[in-house]
Parts: sequence; C-alpha cells; structure tokens
Amino acid sequence: MDKMLHGGEIYGKNIRCDFSVNINPLGLPQTVRESLIRGMDALEHYPDRNCSALREAISGKEEISADWILCGNGASDLFQLITTALRPEKALVTAPAFSGYETALAGTGVRPDYLELRKEEKFCVTDRIFSKLEQQPDLVFLCNPNNPVGNCVKPELLQKIAEYCRKHHIYLVLDECFLGFLPDAEQRSMKPFLENNPYLLLISAFTKLYAMPGLRLGYLLSSNQELMQKMKQRQTEWSVSVPAQQAGIAALAEEHYVEEARILVQEENVYLTAELEKLGFCVYPSCADYLLFETENEIFTELMQRGILIRHCDNYHGLNQNFYRIALKRHADNRKLIAELTDIREKAGTLWKTI
Amino acid sequence: MDKMLHGGEIYGKNIRCDFSVNINPLGLPQTVRESLIRGMDALEHYPDRNCSALREAISGKEEISADWILCGNGASDLFQLITTALRPEKALVTAPAFSGYETALAGTGVRPDYLELRKEEKFCVTDRIFSKLEQQPDLVFLCNPNNPVGNCVKPELLQKIAEYCRKHHIYLVLDECFLGFLPDAEQRSMKPFLENNPYLLLISAFTKLYAMPGLRLGYLLSSNQELMQKMKQRQTEWSVSVPAQQAGIAALAEEHYVEEARILVQEENVYLTAELEKLGFCVYPSCADYLLFETENEIFTELMQRGILIRHCDNYHGLNQNFYRIALKRHADNRKLIAELTDIREKAGTLWKTI
Repeated sequence: MDKMLHGGEIYGKNIRCDFSVNINPLGLPQTVRESLIRGMDALEHYPDRNCSALREAISGKEEISADWILCGNGASDLFQLITTALRPEKALVTAPAFSGYETALAGTGVRPDYLELRKEEKFCVTDRIFSKLEQQPDLVFLCNPNNPVGNCVKPELLQKIAEYCRKHHIYLVLDECFLGFLPDAEQRSMKPFLENNPYLLLISAFTKLYAMPGLRLGYLLSSNQELMQKMKQRQTEWSVSVPAQQAGIAALAEEHYVEEARILVQEENVYLTAELEKLGFCVYPSCADYLLFETENEIFTELMQRGILIRHCDNYHGLNQNFYRIALKRHADNRKLIAELTDIREKAGTLWKTI
Repeated sequence: MDKMLHGGEIYGKNIRCDFSVNINPLGLPQTVRESLIRGMDALEHYPDRNCSALREAISGKEEISADWILCGNGASDLFQLITTALRPEKALVTAPAFSGYETALAGTGVRPDYLELRKEEKFCVTDRIFSKLEQQPDLVFLCNPNNPVGNCVKPELLQKIAEYCRKHHIYLVLDECFLGFLPDAEQRSMKPFLENNPYLLLISAFTKLYAMPGLRLGYLLSSNQELMQKMKQRQTEWSVSVPAQQAGIAALAEEHYVEEARILVQEENVYLTAELEKLGFCVYPSCADYLLFETENEIFTELMQRGILIRHCDNYHGLNQNFYRIALKRHADNRKLIAELTDIREKAGTLWKTI
C-alpha cells in the first residue's frame, strides 16, 4: 500500500467510513449544496479575483476589516504565499504538527527547526518555546488547537508568544483552522491582537468547519498591508474558484450548524476518549474534532480490511507507528468504530497489548 | 472605472451581455452541470491530488500517456509552476499576447524580451523570431492561436521554432488553449513532437473550450519527466478541486459539443468580420472564437452603457486604445452587438470615423 501522507487519501481504496479526515461530522451544510446548484450559471464567468462578496461576508462574521482578509485556494495556498512572500531563512515548527507548514517551507528551500513537543507533557506547547524563539527565526508556525493532537496552547502563553514575536520581528503564523469547533472559540481566537501586531498572521479555513475539503477555501487575517500586497501579487490569478466563493458565502449564513457541530464534537470527544481508553489505548487530551491515541496493536490494516480508514501518524515528525488520529464522526459511526475495534481485540485474544 | 486587466471582469458592473471573455459560446455543457449535481457528496472529501481519473480521461482523449499530463488550478497555475520550476533568467514573449505569461515571469522577477508582432504583418509570428531565439532565452511563451489576435503560426514555421528550441535547450511553452475551436485542431496540435522534444511544453485548458472559467482547470503535456516532477513538488497541495476534476471528466465525455462549437465559431467568425468591416473597423484575420479589431471611435463606454462588455486592449503590450477584442457568441447575441454598434454609429453621425 502507498504511504499515506495525509488524511482522506481514499482514492483507489475500498473505504466505507473515513475517520482519517478531521472535518465537521455534520457534513456539507444543505444551504451550501443549494447555493451551488442555484449558482451554476456563474461557472461560465471568471471568478472575482478580489473575492469581494466573500471577503465582505467573512468581514461581517469575523468583525475584521475586509482589507485585512486574503482568501486562498485552501489554507495550503496561503501557507505557500506566506513563505514565498517572506522568503524566511530560519523557521520554527512544532513536532508533531500539520505537515503543510514543512511543505510550504520546502518550496522556498527551508528546513525548519523543530520545537519537539513531549509525550510526557501530553504534547503541549510550553515555555520551552522561548529558548527556540531566542534563536531568532524569521517565521514560526503554530497550530491552535494543534493537529494531530487536538490540544490548545494556554491563552496567556499564546499571548506571551505573540508579544515576543512582535517585539523581535518574528512572523507568527497561527493556524486557527480547527478553533471553530471549540465552544469558547471566540474567546480563544487571537483576532483582537491583529491590530497592534503586524507580525501576527491568522489562518482559517472552510475545509474543516464546513466539511468542504473538495472545494478548497481558506483565508488569512492580518493587519500588515504591505505583506498582504506582496502575497496578492504572488497569488495565482483566479486562484479561488466560483463554487468556493459561493459556498463560503452560503456557509457563513448558516446559523445553527456550527453550534450543533460544537455540541456533537464535545459529546463524541467524551464518548470516544472513554471507549478508546477501555480498549487499552493511551488517548491524549483533545478539545478538537479529532483524537490522537497510541497503541502497539496493528489496528490500521485490520480496520482497512473492514472498510474503515483511520490516520496513522508515523510520518509526523515526533510520532511513530504506534500513533493514530481519528476524526470524531456522528455517534452511530463512532459506535461502529468501537464495535470493530472491540471485535479486533477479541480476535487478538491474549496477543492484545494495553498501554 | 477601474482599469480592466482581463476579460470577464463583470463584478461591480451592470452587464447584460459579456463579449469580453472568449469562452465557448455554447456555454457550460449540460452533462457537466449534471455531473456536478450528482457528485456533490464528494465535496466532503479532499481532492485526489494526483487527479488520477481525470488524467486517465485526458490521456484517452489526447492519446498521450497519463504520465505526461499535469493538471492545474487553471492554466495560470501551470504557467506559474513552469516559471518557478525553471527559474529562467531570460524569457521571450510575443507582443501582443496573453498577459498571464508576463504575470508568471514577474513572480520570479523576470521581465521578458518582446517579439513585437507587426500590424502591417497582421500580427503574425514570422521568421523574425529566430533573431530573438539566437539571443538564447531560457524560455519562450507562444500562444497558438494567439490571444488576442486569433491567428495561427504556420505549421512549418512552428515546427522549425520547436526544433530550434530543442537543439538550443530553450524551453518552448506553447499555449494551445484555443486550438480546440479550430476545425483542424488535431492536425495543428504540436502533440506529435512531444516525444522527441523534452523542451516542448503544451498547455491546454477546459476554461475556454468547455466554458468553465469559474471552475479553474488546465493541463500541461510534456514528455520531460524530470521537469514534471519538479513542478509537482512545487504545486499547492490539492490544487485542483473536486468539482473541477468532476467537470473535466464529464466534459471529455461530450461527443458533439466541441464539433457544434467549431461550426458555430466558423459561421459567426465570417458573419461578425463582415459586419464589423461594414461599420468601418479594421478586423484582423482570426481562426479562433474571438476577433481583434481597431477603431478610433469611443465604443467601449457606449456599449457599457447599454449593458455590453467588450475587451479593450490598451493594456496589451504592442496594442493601444483603438484595439478591442470581442468573443464570438451565439448568432442572436452577435446580431444584438452589431445592432447596438450600428445605433452608436448613427447617433455619432459625421463624427464616426472609419479606418
């Protein structure tokens, strides 16, 4: 089997249930589907390259000036624009973290320094980050909540990091793509610090929160107009497609969808954590719509044979072949996963290992 | 009014009929619409980053190995990948030509040399190109048929150019995005020369031929596997969206659509050329789905006030404010355009200028 580099690599496999992609378990909102069908005539036009209507809609939701918003062909497009616009010589990422930061850095020939998050610290970002920041990187990628762990940086620590970066002219790219799943997302977002910190760049995406990875839509928030201009100049023309712009506008008009998802995620987080622990797995604390856990049992191939895809994490710097990430799905799906895992354990008998 | 940089900039304007974008006058094929509606569940999955099914479909249609095909987020994505992968120091483009080549070159800091096409030569590429090629550029962009003129490079000359480039290790990017509108497209395509010429890169897109600029889908053909690999490494992850891949596959299954478009384009080309000449405009010979013409009358604003957008060409290097490009549309639309122009001429009376 090909090495899986990212969740959701379902192509060429026989998958009934995909736990490898950590998107909203509620699926694509119905209003988004309707807007795409209604808007199909617009496919005959070039996209609005300024994404004006979409940026207005984001501006209204985020309570941020439209000038501070740059839309991209997925968050990946924005990570790449950041690295090509800034051309950093030294960069810092956490390990483990989303591989997209390294991919974007590799595009400009940079191999990052790593802040190794420690298993015994439950992979939390701690004050140890400052010894790395003292080495004066040009750019830092942080993910809050972190992917694949699902834990958050403590708000006071995060503010201290952002302030240090501002003072020392280090660009801090804070990936808030999963923040929307948290009940206290609005309190945790670093948006209020954008105005006085031109070195702070926030990334958000529709991919995860509105379950539309197929459409490619992310956005960047920054008060740094000079940098925004540089990135715009480097962006591929008509980068954000017409359906992505339509879907984004429709998604933002959803009122109860995100709230419903937050409740579901909280409930299923509690349920699955407890069940996975009962199976003898070590589950790391998460507040997001996915869980990282550790087991020495060979569950990946067993689940795959049952049509269930989970994310193995051996290609994350800082993790190994015993780590897996699963998305939280609807309760019936989650029960099914636990039932299959229980069956696998029973068949393994005394060979089953607990941590 | 904002300066218009490209056709199709309809946003924020009151446009009833857009002649500024040279896409297929038949509009988005019905089967493409249906495939997008049927395939909507797939938006909840990440795109296949290898575009495997789409590349297979293109491979079948083009009779080219799937390994020689790279799909991109519109042709613009591919132009940018070419320049970032090759990092040319010297590049040659024709003037006039599609501005996207210059945009892609600007991204790597290159200002191209121009082969100035001459009005008195009807803006045709001639043997004069060899004096430019002798200066050994790293990269040449050619568009066949050329945009915004619509004329073709003579096949023997084109083959001579490609052979010169192969011998002298000059990358030749040949943009065949509009070739599909020609009745002899299959004979004119330079595909047969790919196998023995690793310096030849062909660009094609669904944007124009299948009227889907909103979806962003283009592809590159090349036998140069080393270069293909370099470009893939630099491409944004999941660059080609799920609907773009779905639409591409559906479009290629269309049997009569392209043929019907070719007939329409030929007929309307003859009709509009004759009518525009009657109005006293100088029309340049075109075999594509658009016409370039010249007039000293201020028709742009007049048409805009009537809800009709055409492409003024003053931002093309080598043209000036007297040049306009119009797309060929369905006959009723084209008649409407001529009727409005005739009305404008009548209102102008003796102030109307003929060339």
